[in-house]
Amino acid sequence: MATATDQVILALSCPNRPGIVAAVSTYLFESRCNIQEASQYDDPDSGRFFMRVVLNAVGAPVAVEDLKTGFAPIAERFQMAWTMRARGELRRVMLLVSKFDHCLTDLLYRWRIGEIPMIVTGIIANHSRDTYAHIDLDGIPFHHLPVTKETKLEQETRIWDLVKETRSEVVVLARYMQVLSDGLAAKLKGRCINIHHSFLPGFKGAKPYHQAHERGVKLIGATAHYVTSDLDEGPIIEQDVERISHQATPDDLVRKGRDIERRVLARALSWHLEDRVILNGKRTVVFPS
Amino acid sequence: MATATDQVILALSCPNRPGIVAAVSTYLFESRCNIQEASQYDDPDSGRFFMRVVLNAVGAPVAVEDLKTGFAPIAERFQMAWTMRARGELRRVMLLVSKFDHCLTDLLYRWRIGEIPMIVTGIIANHSRDTYAHIDLDGIPFHHLPVTKETKLEQETRIWDLVKETRSEVVVLARYMQVLSDGLAAKLKGRCINIHHSFLPGFKGAKPYHQAHERGVKLIGATAHYVTSDLDEGPIIEQDVERISHQATPDDLVRKGRDIERRVLARALSWHLEDRVILNGKRTVVFPS
Amino acid sequence: MATATDQVILALSCPNRPGIVAAVSTYLFESRCNIQEASQYDDPDSGRFFMRVVLNAVGAPVAVEDLKTGFAPIAERFQMAWTMRARGELRRVMLLVSKFDHCLTDLLYRWRIGEIPMIVTGIIANHSRDTYAHIDLDGIPFHHLPVTKETKLEQETRIWDLVKETRSEVVVLARYMQVLSDGLAAKLKGRCINIHHSFLPGFKGAKPYHQAHERGVKLIGATAHYVTSDLDEGPIIEQDVERISHQATPDDLVRKGRDIERRVLARALSWHLEDRVILNGKRTVVFPS
Amino acid sequence: MATATDQVILALSCPNRPGIVAAVSTYLFESRCNIQEASQYDDPDSGRFFMRVVLNAVGAPVAVEDLKTGFAPIAERFQMAWTMRARGELRRVMLLVSKFDHCLTDLLYRWRIGEIPMIVTGIIANHSRDTYAHIDLDGIPFHHLPVTKETKLEQETRIWDLVKETRSEVVVLARYMQVLSDGLAAKLKGRCINIHHSFLPGFKGAKPYHQAHERGVKLIGATAHYVTSDLDEGPIIEQDVERISHQATPDDLVRKGRDIERRVLARALSWHLEDRVILNGKRTVVFPS
Repeated sequence: MATATDQVILALSCPNRPGIVAAVSTYLFESRCNIQEASQYDDPDSGRFFMRVVLNAVGAPVAVEDLKTGFAPIAERFQMAWTMRARGELRRVMLLVSKFDHCLTDLLYRWRIGEIPMIVTGIIANHSRDTYAHIDLDGIPFHHLPVTKETKLEQETRIWDLVKETRSEVVVLARYMQVLSDGLAAKLKGRCINIHHSFLPGFKGAKPYHQAHERGVKLIGATAHYVTSDLDEGPIIEQDVERISHQATPDDLVRKGRDIERRVLARALSWHLEDRVILNGKRTVVFPS
Repeated sequence: MATATDQVILALSCPNRPGIVAAVSTYLFESRCNIQEASQYDDPDSGRFFMRVVLNAVGAPVAVEDLKTGFAPIAERFQMAWTMRARGELRRVMLLVSKFDHCLTDLLYRWRIGEIPMIVTGIIANHSRDTYAHIDLDGIPFHHLPVTKETKLEQETRIWDLVKETRSEVVVLARYMQVLSDGLAAKLKGRCINIHHSFLPGFKGAKPYHQAHERGVKLIGATAHYVTSDLDEGPIIEQDVERISHQATPDDLVRKGRDIERRVLARALSWHLEDRVILNGKRTVVFPS
Repeated sequence: MATATDQVILALSCPNRPGIVAAVSTYLFESRCNIQEASQYDDPDSGRFFMRVVLNAVGAPVAVEDLKTGFAPIAERFQMAWTMRARGELRRVMLLVSKFDHCLTDLLYRWRIGEIPMIVTGIIANHSRDTYAHIDLDGIPFHHLPVTKETKLEQETRIWDLVKETRSEVVVLARYMQVLSDGLAAKLKGRCINIHHSFLPGFKGAKPYHQAHERGVKLIGATAHYVTSDLDEGPIIEQDVERISHQATPDDLVRKGRDIERRVLARALSWHLEDRVILNGKRTVVFPS
Repeated sequence: MATATDQVILALSCPNRPGIVAAVSTYLFESRCNIQEASQYDDPDSGRFFMRVVLNAVGAPVAVEDLKTGFAPIAERFQMAWTMRARGELRRVMLLVSKFDHCLTDLLYRWRIGEIPMIVTGIIANHSRDTYAHIDLDGIPFHHLPVTKETKLEQETRIWDLVKETRSEVVVLARYMQVLSDGLAAKLKGRCINIHHSFLPGFKGAKPYHQAHERGVKLIGATAHYVTSDLDEGPIIEQDVERISHQATPDDLVRKGRDIERRVLARALSWHLEDRVILNGKRTVVFPS
């Protein structure tokens, strides 16, 4: 099997009409590429077509830039929103965090052992470095950007500057407990992933585990979603739940929730980095692994 | 092991204070009873204590009435809300249903093979008997009580009369798609179980599967709860979920939901009939099987 | 969206080589077909390629026979094992059952309400009709074929005759508790689905719930698989599990297991009928719904 | 609510006979203790009775030693195997690990944030300290004890010495990939927890994820169990599973498995430390949290 470095991932969406798969696959065949895995979906509601292809070159290695150049006219003909990347080319990811570091710790572990291949361009926290004293950052730049109501504008400008300076393609709110302003949310549209500690749309807003305890639900959950200006309403990427009993205190829910949060966020980020997630209006198409 | 007919189930709740378990278990011991299974829980929020005991007589069979008489003074001393029943003595259950009969069919199947031991006192439907032509009612009385806004008062009065006439202890809304009035809900407090076709508190009200599709959630669920005058806000007994994909249409969600609904309702009813569910304000204590 | 009657499903597998998707999709495009949903998978182990396409005609309705005729040369070129069917054309399914009828009852319910579209060609049971007295067979032919060691050959010959006479394409062992002979298993290769009441490969053979209780596992499950001459070793289509506690008796496991069995078997049959399941040696490729 | 430091946990098992709960709870009441949470279970197979009580003192703080002294005669009368501990008194735990450190990392994280309260007495690895370079051991003694067939006896003797020297009550094989000898297993009976990377009893022995891939199962799992001299046959404490697809390679299963393993092991260890797990022959009673 071709290794990741030989593979290319094409992801696209466009208005549906006949001939899209034929055009794409014929182009790939004529470019001497082999399709290793592919999924297509035609949404009857939105009238849009979604496609993801993992391919490798047959014989000589494929030059992604050449492949992109050749693909551009097809993309234009079908009005595609599309990306094509060498699988082995790592994406640049900025992590934001507040006091609770279970998601940060988990993502860094998965990154270190190669489970989530990426370049972590930096960590931005509104708490100081010693809050995370036990975490080996392995040389990742750490930025302490405290924030108050009065300084929020400046702090967000600094975040945005850091994203630009580091050429970060993806921003992860790994239990970053500050609401992004509409302005920053707009700039990060479709590439900023948040983990909300409830099974949305239940228990929006603050202290969802306390709300869940109050309501007496029998399962709690977490939701990873793209950040939009509409708080807790962004397109959902992944959700999961665990069973709880009447004995569980709010603190127990927080504890159980940590496990759900970290695995839901890790899945969402992995899938995003593998171009498995494509926006479909207020929803997402997620081609499963 | 003692068979069900030999067993007695005691369930109680009361303000917490030391000595409750000692008083109860000493009484049972002196009454020559053996504790087969028991659970206790002290809720720090409400300050209430909850207990469920399955017991059997050692030697001569136990007369539940005698056991109750002897227990009454203890119950009074600790201000208990309590029930004590012979496990083999079947409870009387009335089923209400509208057009969709998957929950009804499922409950009747479980009843027929002895999985949910009960006496089904009748079926009340706002659709006519031929809607359920394929179901063998096995002699269970069927009552067609159509309802309109204008006749709702009369129809509910008739329902209440049937509940009284049949001495039904439990009422199950097995996808009965009419909202009970506050008055009827009040009369059935703590003994009327509804199945809502969403993972509450998400997607209250009508067409929850369409709401779920619109929102793009990745799991759908169902919720069994006690009916209160506050729609979809009653104490939750049981919930469950299943994973869905972006391909799922609202009709697919309805189809998947049927499986979740019927198993959640069956569990909730079973647990209620086994006295595993005790009300705790707006929540429930459920001692697991 | 095109309704099921307008849709055609193509499913295929073949040795992997470049150009398969291009050839298939170009053919479909030139035949004025639109791809609504598709999945491809290239198995690096077996070197085989798998593909499933749901398509509909653009404009004039598509004649499946014509589409098949045109596709045959492509299929030959790539050495494909393939099927192409009008989605609305119902498959013919024979159900086999023994004493426990929960899977049979469930499949018939799903068939009746249109959830599993199929033609049930008959029910074969080694118990008599009155064992299933409460089931409305709705005119489905019922065949009582009792079996002993001595009569097994004759009984299986009769089963095979019934399968042929009724032109049944699929045979479902819906808790049919007789082991098929190698001969009959061979004739039904790839189209006979069994439900085994354990999470295979754990607890093969008889009384799996008793084995599970004995071993003290914390989850029990069920497995739907294609029948092969190698007992409990056939390619797995679907599995699921539920959590159990130390309190559960073998009877409780049997009861819980019924729920798992019926939903696992229903999923497996649905997926098979929708051509989502393709054999891959001793394993299966299942394109998810 | 009483904090952990005020609470005492009593766990016991004994031959079943009437009067056990009465004797225990009367003693606790007379010792001015309040029962906060309790569970009892009478196993009809083994004829043994199991009980776990969380209690706190009413008024003056309770001296556990006094409580134990007073309880001893009751324990003797009923032939109890029992423990009674102050909840706030941390147990001493030794962790053993090989190359893969996901379980070790996870347990240390949970320990650090207080989720699993314990004293980690040391880490024993058959790989050198630099294998775990990124882990902040926070002063926990690290012992590199490499092992070969020839040195196994000496190495295990050293392990046992370390367990004794550090007064470790619990030993956790956190993906320690060496089989313990019968001798060492016997010394650690009922207090050595292993995580096996399959859903036992399926896929015993080496490379279970490769076995699972070969067999084509649709769910993979992990099992935490007490170590016995019978490899992979010890009493099961906890199991969990996740769904996989036909696309998953053995490496994908290993990756998915890491998540299951670490949460299953963490739950098993937590429950063991909270005295929720009581041995019942080859099985366990686990009183749920």
